[in-house]
Amino acid sequence: MSTTLITGGTVVSATGRAEADVLIDGATIAAVLAPGSQLLGTDLAASVDTVVDATGKYVIPGGIDAHTHMELPFGGTNASDTFETGTRAAAWGGTTTIIDFAVQRYGERVQDGLAAWHAKAEGECAIDYGFHQIIGGIDDDSLAAMRGLLDEGISSFKLFMAYPGVFYSDDAQVLKAMQVSAETGLLTMMHAENGPAIDVLAAQLADAGKIAPSYHGVARAWQLEEEATHRAIMIANLTGAPLYVVHVSAKQAVEQLAAARDKGWNVFGETCPQYLYLSLEEQLGAFSAEWGQFEGAKWVCSTPLRSRAEGHQDHMWQALRTNDLQMVSTDHCPFCMKGQKDLGLADFRAIPNGIGSVEHRMDLMYQGVVTGRITLERWVELTSTTPARMFGLYGRKGVIQPGADGDAVVYDPSGHTSIGYGDGRTHHMNMDHSAWEGFEIDGHVDTVVSRGRVIVDAGRYLGSKGDGRFLRRGLSQYLV
Amino acid sequence: MSTTLITGGTVVSATGRAEADVLIDGATIAAVLAPGSQLLGTDLAASVDTVVDATGKYVIPGGIDAHTHMELPFGGTNASDTFETGTRAAAWGGTTTIIDFAVQRYGERVQDGLAAWHAKAEGECAIDYGFHQIIGGIDDDSLAAMRGLLDEGISSFKLFMAYPGVFYSDDAQVLKAMQVSAETGLLTMMHAENGPAIDVLAAQLADAGKIAPSYHGVARAWQLEEEATHRAIMIANLTGAPLYVVHVSAKQAVEQLAAARDKGWNVFGETCPQYLYLSLEEQLGAFSAEWGQFEGAKWVCSTPLRSRAEGHQDHMWQALRTNDLQMVSTDHCPFCMKGQKDLGLADFRAIPNGIGSVEHRMDLMYQGVVTGRITLERWVELTSTTPARMFGLYGRKGVIQPGADGDAVVYDPSGHTSIGYGDGRTHHMNMDHSAWEGFEIDGHVDTVVSRGRVIVDAGRYLGSKGDGRFLRRGLSQYLV
Amino acid sequence: MSTTLITGGTVVSATGRAEADVLIDGATIAAVLAPGSQLLGTDLAASVDTVVDATGKYVIPGGIDAHTHMELPFGGTNASDTFETGTRAAAWGGTTTIIDFAVQRYGERVQDGLAAWHAKAEGECAIDYGFHQIIGGIDDDSLAAMRGLLDEGISSFKLFMAYPGVFYSDDAQVLKAMQVSAETGLLTMMHAENGPAIDVLAAQLADAGKIAPSYHGVARAWQLEEEATHRAIMIANLTGAPLYVVHVSAKQAVEQLAAARDKGWNVFGETCPQYLYLSLEEQLGAFSAEWGQFEGAKWVCSTPLRSRAEGHQDHMWQALRTNDLQMVSTDHCPFCMKGQKDLGLADFRAIPNGIGSVEHRMDLMYQGVVTGRITLERWVELTSTTPARMFGLYGRKGVIQPGADGDAVVYDPSGHTSIGYGDGRTHHMNMDHSAWEGFEIDGHVDTVVSRGRVIVDAGRYLGSKGDGRFLRRGLSQYLV
Amino acid sequence: MSTTLITGGTVVSATGRAEADVLIDGATIAAVLAPGSQLLGTDLAASVDTVVDATGKYVIPGGIDAHTHMELPFGGTNASDTFETGTRAAAWGGTTTIIDFAVQRYGERVQDGLAAWHAKAEGECAIDYGFHQIIGGIDDDSLAAMRGLLDEGISSFKLFMAYPGVFYSDDAQVLKAMQVSAETGLLTMMHAENGPAIDVLAAQLADAGKIAPSYHGVARAWQLEEEATHRAIMIANLTGAPLYVVHVSAKQAVEQLAAARDKGWNVFGETCPQYLYLSLEEQLGAFSAEWGQFEGAKWVCSTPLRSRAEGHQDHMWQALRTNDLQMVSTDHCPFCMKGQKDLGLADFRAIPNGIGSVEHRMDLMYQGVVTGRITLERWVELTSTTPARMFGLYGRKGVIQPGADGDAVVYDPSGHTSIGYGDGRTHHMNMDHSAWEGFEIDGHVDTVVSRGRVIVDAGRYLGSKGDGRFLRRGLSQYLV
Repeated sequence: MSTTLITGGTVVSATGRAEADVLIDGATIAAVLAPGSQLLGTDLAASVDTVVDATGKYVIPGGIDAHTHMELPFGGTNASDTFETGTRAAAWGGTTTIIDFAVQRYGERVQDGLAAWHAKAEGECAIDYGFHQIIGGIDDDSLAAMRGLLDEGISSFKLFMAYPGVFYSDDAQVLKAMQVSAETGLLTMMHAENGPAIDVLAAQLADAGKIAPSYHGVARAWQLEEEATHRAIMIANLTGAPLYVVHVSAKQAVEQLAAARDKGWNVFGETCPQYLYLSLEEQLGAFSAEWGQFEGAKWVCSTPLRSRAEGHQDHMWQALRTNDLQMVSTDHCPFCMKGQKDLGLADFRAIPNGIGSVEHRMDLMYQGVVTGRITLERWVELTSTTPARMFGLYGRKGVIQPGADGDAVVYDPSGHTSIGYGDGRTHHMNMDHSAWEGFEIDGHVDTVVSRGRVIVDAGRYLGSKGDGRFLRRGLSQYLV
Repeated sequence: MSTTLITGGTVVSATGRAEADVLIDGATIAAVLAPGSQLLGTDLAASVDTVVDATGKYVIPGGIDAHTHMELPFGGTNASDTFETGTRAAAWGGTTTIIDFAVQRYGERVQDGLAAWHAKAEGECAIDYGFHQIIGGIDDDSLAAMRGLLDEGISSFKLFMAYPGVFYSDDAQVLKAMQVSAETGLLTMMHAENGPAIDVLAAQLADAGKIAPSYHGVARAWQLEEEATHRAIMIANLTGAPLYVVHVSAKQAVEQLAAARDKGWNVFGETCPQYLYLSLEEQLGAFSAEWGQFEGAKWVCSTPLRSRAEGHQDHMWQALRTNDLQMVSTDHCPFCMKGQKDLGLADFRAIPNGIGSVEHRMDLMYQGVVTGRITLERWVELTSTTPARMFGLYGRKGVIQPGADGDAVVYDPSGHTSIGYGDGRTHHMNMDHSAWEGFEIDGHVDTVVSRGRVIVDAGRYLGSKGDGRFLRRGLSQYLV
Repeated sequence: MSTTLITGGTVVSATGRAEADVLIDGATIAAVLAPGSQLLGTDLAASVDTVVDATGKYVIPGGIDAHTHMELPFGGTNASDTFETGTRAAAWGGTTTIIDFAVQRYGERVQDGLAAWHAKAEGECAIDYGFHQIIGGIDDDSLAAMRGLLDEGISSFKLFMAYPGVFYSDDAQVLKAMQVSAETGLLTMMHAENGPAIDVLAAQLADAGKIAPSYHGVARAWQLEEEATHRAIMIANLTGAPLYVVHVSAKQAVEQLAAARDKGWNVFGETCPQYLYLSLEEQLGAFSAEWGQFEGAKWVCSTPLRSRAEGHQDHMWQALRTNDLQMVSTDHCPFCMKGQKDLGLADFRAIPNGIGSVEHRMDLMYQGVVTGRITLERWVELTSTTPARMFGLYGRKGVIQPGADGDAVVYDPSGHTSIGYGDGRTHHMNMDHSAWEGFEIDGHVDTVVSRGRVIVDAGRYLGSKGDGRFLRRGLSQYLV
Repeated sequence: MSTTLITGGTVVSATGRAEADVLIDGATIAAVLAPGSQLLGTDLAASVDTVVDATGKYVIPGGIDAHTHMELPFGGTNASDTFETGTRAAAWGGTTTIIDFAVQRYGERVQDGLAAWHAKAEGECAIDYGFHQIIGGIDDDSLAAMRGLLDEGISSFKLFMAYPGVFYSDDAQVLKAMQVSAETGLLTMMHAENGPAIDVLAAQLADAGKIAPSYHGVARAWQLEEEATHRAIMIANLTGAPLYVVHVSAKQAVEQLAAARDKGWNVFGETCPQYLYLSLEEQLGAFSAEWGQFEGAKWVCSTPLRSRAEGHQDHMWQALRTNDLQMVSTDHCPFCMKGQKDLGLADFRAIPNGIGSVEHRMDLMYQGVVTGRITLERWVELTSTTPARMFGLYGRKGVIQPGADGDAVVYDPSGHTSIGYGDGRTHHMNMDHSAWEGFEIDGHVDTVVSRGRVIVDAGRYLGSKGDGRFLRRGLSQYLV
């Protein structure tokens, strides 16, 4: 096995910084050492196989994106990134672990759904990956199957209070699933929007001829996210289940989380870059020569973009500081405009929901450091350390320490990244557009190391399909 | 310089654990390494001067007690621990850093107060020490002097809303001091109790012949802590000052902190072991052959012990979990029963306020891990990592990483510690009793390393007076 | 038409008292006058047909019970009071108006349901009556019919978030109905409990052999009332519907109402005597020679009795003082033990839900005046004035003023009322037991006047079946 | 004694309306009767001495302004209205009762202060008047004197947390006074602003050359009103004193009141027209040919006008609807621009604090009915019924009922009132300007009856100096 030394950098953790070198032996970190590459007389730099020079740069644990949907069948089409293309794009952006969602639907066996996702991912991934299990059909069989998930390395499952007829669980089903969550320690992840109510509003809008993309956000009113968030919290409290609310976008939903957390309840929440940066107003104003006002379809996602005038975006940033939200994932679920998003040209309800961001999360969040929204340490915590702790990966992932997987990113605060797809720009996701067109980042992912292998460096991709392995996850570190 | 290897243990940080060895070179940590003491062919254990075997034990950053009062003149007497005896006791208990309070009173120069405390501490301490600056007399001179504190290595000052005529600042003074805090980044520490109102109630009780020690707590009603906490928060919000409320004991005060923190305000709070474990009811019932009901005097401290029936203690533990309180310090301020506490035999108002705990904090908080109140990681965070981050010591203190001071504690979860002073038990604080008599801890401080020197090991104190050095502190890491 | 003078009493209103006589001319109040029955030389007492001497007593507007269920088909049986027996019992207890619930179920026409209830009540009632409309099946037809309700004198409708398969509306249906509420001004009344979740818990308890009556309350956990209350509030806020939550029993549900009201949202709540006086603990301990532990079935109602240890009862009283709850109704829904409640001997789920209280509400609430829980004025406001204002009856009902219906009660604060059914006691409701057995009231309903007729006096019932007329109600006074 | 009949109007109470005539016999209301002036054959209109035709108009209980400062010595001058001019202006505006503030200052006897105010008012007033007692110097003597106030017909006293060196009480003094309040039932009225902190900010502004009137509002930041409000609430809670906070202007202060009220604490608040209609922004922009930017001095009052951008005004209106504020008084404290306000030309701190509104309160609040901010009933409740209940006058004042004083206003909703002093407009207050210049009211005070005498009618003042009598007040109706 080969050895690698990342030298001269500032190692950043969730709690602070250290001027230190990182020695990786094979796939595993062997030591974190005082800089200078000397140890008891040994010149380490001279002894190792590979030296990565991180002088003047940050060395951080590889990013963990705990919410992706590669190849997800949704809205009559499939998310456009395969595990191959999506994980490679993630690697380019400094993310070395994803946790994707295996899907069980009503009438299907959980085991089959999981097996199908293993089949999609195995041998395809550029980086390590784990699975959450979507439970789209709660019944006695699926409840029984959930009890076996931990043995499969799956320590979390996701329910939907939205999407009636697709993934939706009613409150009776949610209650039963949360009882299993409380019993097993599996973390309940929740898409918290009142789907039945949303579908009424959406139908009324469509019936009234209001079919443009931004009506998607009008139908998905903040009251219906706040309401479902509260409902999930109360059923979790009743059952004793640990609860993790995904893609929080409404400030009132955050207030519900904060109130529960103030009481000491075991409730968590993530937000996504789109809810920090993009708004309903911008979606309303979106326009392009090619698509006209349908350009806004690129920002159709659920939960939806919220009004900037109402202050949701600022509140999300604040909640990241106050720890009322603990993580930032992408909810990466890419669809092309042509042949996918355009299914909804005549009715916003037919636009596949999703934004592709897996490649840009580390950069977009670093820009929050640049603008003073979060500290450098909080950046690492939100994007890597907490995801690892939350989802049972800590020790292997989420931290630079001996024994951990050799996953690290050398991030250059003097670098620059221009995000986009058109006008000569490109990205590595399989999308025909970028939801982040024109975003400029005052930093750059220089080098990415995954289990001891340098897979991105100096603008080149050095990894291979199949490098990534399935991660058997343990229980969340936050169950106490 | 000599080298030390702590080997075979589980290194615990604020975010998780690692099976790792710690190599200390001179006074500084040189590396954290995969266990086995092998590195690129070098047998470290054989190469170093000293090997500390931590097999089966936790290796944690040395404790930081950010609130002590060695030799404090108070109530007509002096806190009974000198810097020599107090810091030695701290070392015995796994604390390798204290931050004590230099005192300026009305009419005195800040510089003189600071110099006086340097004189008391220099050459006396067993472990490293820093100072906060008490400002007991806000006027133009002291305000000017405060602007120079950071150059002296002092990054925090403390005000009192209690103790009129002693340390008390009125709201006009608090406002002016907080303006300096906002301007300089110095952290405002606040004793938040409404002193003028308390003094009325205390005088009324005493006039009514209610002179027993527990009336101390009756006079210092929770409403008056809650109120002052809120007041401090609002003046901090008005001025932009970062605020740190000391020795929080009332659940309603925590609720005020939580509400402010939910809004994203820069507000912090510590509690102390006495507010987690002891109660007003127990003080009411205290009795000894020697002292009768005056036995309760040993628990006279300010803020006071609170009612267990009202749930304050449980709420303090909860707030430590929810991070509405961020740290646990001792407010170590010891007085002997004979000749000190007994000044108040005829009037509870004359009992010197204070409890001695500097030796026991790490143990008492570890017991919270044993009982499931907090996680092992949170124990380290509350007692070491956050104090370091809060008070500008992180990097040198509060973490086991290369470049940090070689401060570490080997803590044995299979050990046992019986706390007490009488019945054949002893402690190392200069007190003729223990406020913690009879507490049994399911763990033990085995070895204490301070800047690379083993100062406690195998039940022996191996250090020397004067080992400890003054720590120049930088600004808090939480100012953003 | 005859004239009646109520003389010598203290007229109590929602805001205060007056020593005054009340002159009723035919069915209508003609004047409120300074006592002494002299007016510009006319000796009124000598001029009128009937004089009611109220010396030393309170004269209050007749009670309005805005929540009764006479003859309600429920759980395979019918509420045991007919409109005849139930309204007569109401009259005995000082209530001169009820608002009962006409029922529409899924698949039925609203108009038919209303007509059926008119048929049940017409010519049967001792006192005036109005109807709310239960909408048990929201669809296009019923939504259209709701728009016609106001023309029928119905200004409020009730939905159920509980009882799936019976009255239950899902959130899509609730949303649609509330849109009609916002559009028309009809008040949305809500049974706010999460029925689907409750049914899961109830089935799990029953499956585990936990079949005793008190498991009814275990299954209907406070979290599920709080949750549904919040959900109803949010959908009301989204649509702009005015919301009135019936039979609130959980303190956390009150907190939800209070939070919404603090924001200025148009949200109201009632509680019932059982939630003020009775508890889950007493239900757990209920026992009789005849029924054994099944005795607790007499207190099976929904929402259920709550734990006294958790403080719900005290909180209901407090909420009546703070106006976070605005009214007290009975939810009168009587069932006999024999032949009705005993349907659930083998399974608490089969016990018909309901308590009979229509006769006792004014007394039970007056006892709250005696014990200092509420003021005399608040008693009148809670039981008469606010119900009239809330449900579009004010001016005719709810107040002693010229032009109002001649409904009044002479209440003797020196009297006494012993409530019960056995041991020589009796009541006038058609029940074989009393849920209020043994309650002693320090006051007494002496005389009841309904539209100018003395129908109860000196322990005799002087009215007739059919005295009561249907009340066409206008919109709530609280819609602004 | 003469008799008066107000006929044909709509009598409005706090809870509703009635088409009714009001018969006044001498100084007292004798009857409220069905319209048409017939009673048992007697033609009342023909029998009485005076008939007031209120056809098409509202008949309301005379307004009660519970917060006026006639002839108050303040800022080196005296409020410009005497009891004669001020109460006559009040009468013009439909106010038939004022409660003014007798003043005790530090070192003075309470009894002497009260006597001095009696001397100022006796024989001077156009309408009835009562007194609150300002306690500006809490010491043993004044505390003893407070216990005798109720015997003097004074049931409330006022403390100041503002104005150090003038009326200020420190927290020790506030605590002692509130203990007397709890003991006696006297209502504690509080000027809740943190005076010591305000004085620091004001001095800093003045020292920086910021001397314009609007800096008055900058110095009196909302944080310092919120803080003091909270502090007053907590000391009230500690002592059990009933608390009434005067002239609330900051929305955050209302939130403190609302939170306390939600807990069932006995806490009340008033606001004033200026906090509903005027703003800091308008004060910043104030300009006149005569005074330039000093024109803003007319709006210098304490608490100050608040920022409209921050939403305080809307929140005050909302709080009037939610009953988090219960009353509207004027804090009438008029000063002329010439010779009074202009004392502060060179320093905003020298501008006498106060606005004159006693004449306009009923109109300004009625405009809130016109614009849909409050209901007609709430108008009566806020301006008359609640003040009477709050301050121990109900039964005599605040309601149209037999036995009450014959105080009534005939208000014409078809009338119009143009408020102002210049441009041909005039008012009856002794001021050389109007703070309400240009306000247009869609209603008009037509007739004012005070204890049975028509004192204003058809644009003429028919009363006399000395008509008004001192009102001995009882305890608040809200003490329970």
